[in-house]
Amino acid sequence: MVNLYVALVHYPVVNRQGDTIASAVTNLDVHDIARSACTYGVKTYYVVTPLTDQIKLVETIVSHWTEGPGGQHNPKRREALSLIRVEKSLSGVVGHISGQGGGDPKIVVTSAKKRSGSIDYVRFREMIQTGEPYLLVFGTGWGLSDQVMDGADYFLQPVSGPVDYNHLSVRSAAAVILDRLIGC
Amino acid sequence: MVNLYVALVHYPVVNRQGDTIASAVTNLDVHDIARSACTYGVKTYYVVTPLTDQIKLVETIVSHWTEGPGGQHNPKRREALSLIRVEKSLSGVVGHISGQGGGDPKIVVTSAKKRSGSIDYVRFREMIQTGEPYLLVFGTGWGLSDQVMDGADYFLQPVSGPVDYNHLSVRSAAAVILDRLIGC
Repeated sequence: MVNLYVALVHYPVVNRQGDTIASAVTNLDVHDIARSACTYGVKTYYVVTPLTDQIKLVETIVSHWTEGPGGQHNPKRREALSLIRVEKSLSGVVGHISGQGGGDPKIVVTSAKKRSGSIDYVRFREMIQTGEPYLLVFGTGWGLSDQVMDGADYFLQPVSGPVDYNHLSVRSAAAVILDRLIGC
Repeated sequence: MVNLYVALVHYPVVNRQGDTIASAVTNLDVHDIARSACTYGVKTYYVVTPLTDQIKLVETIVSHWTEGPGGQHNPKRREALSLIRVEKSLSGVVGHISGQGGGDPKIVVTSAKKRSGSIDYVRFREMIQTGEPYLLVFGTGWGLSDQVMDGADYFLQPVSGPVDYNHLSVRSAAAVILDRLIGC
């Protein structure tokens, strides 16, 4: 099993104008990325938001499926949503991973934009196979803020197809990237 | 460019008990799969439902983004949703593709369950490169009915990761499969 963690960041991200904002949590981001994380053997899926009402929202969604009637109705969904942990910040995520005794994770950020010095999927796939902890970070809204990008250890190449259009939803991009890194 | 079409079927599909039903359209299935289709150069994304109210719902969503305020606000989303066409049945989809002069498409169905005689991604990727038309079919609910599966030309292998869990959302599965077939 790989030592890979995923974080979906709602702050700090940018809006269409490039301003730093806190985005709202989307229910299907919680579900879809948990299901992808579970399919590809990700250790923990962190939903990152500092907003009290949004933290409560995620906890309500998760507990409905892990402890409430949702999980009795659909045990497969319970298994997926059990991977979720809410954290107020990326540093909280790093602290939680480090607390598991394998050291600080290397932070790998994703973006739909090309950036020089990015690592490609073949290389990152090899890096993961070492068993060292890696944290793969996705942004909501119009993407991760420069503050997060600049604090990362690695930038991952954007996903691309044969045409000059790459506006996947973050749910789809997360699934594709996990498949490229860990799919059989 | 490949000659690939995608259909998302809402009837006939099965529910948890295996009964044949018509499922309700999910807004994010419309958006996410259109964005994936656009990213990977799919020619048309067919949303298949025979229900009058559901047809109207999809047409309302699509026109909001292709002709209404949504598209002015977000031209990239307009480009993606312009790929959508609503059809009442899979035979309607096949008829529409044939009407474009390239002959009837071969029908390739997807499922989360293993089935003997499935084709793998390497083989289907090669088949697509011939330029012949292919229709890739996804089911909602608990999957396509036997009627659809038995009428297909090919079954595509399920997506799998390193663990014994493969409950991706149809949005995620469509993105991963298109990436495996056409991703760069």
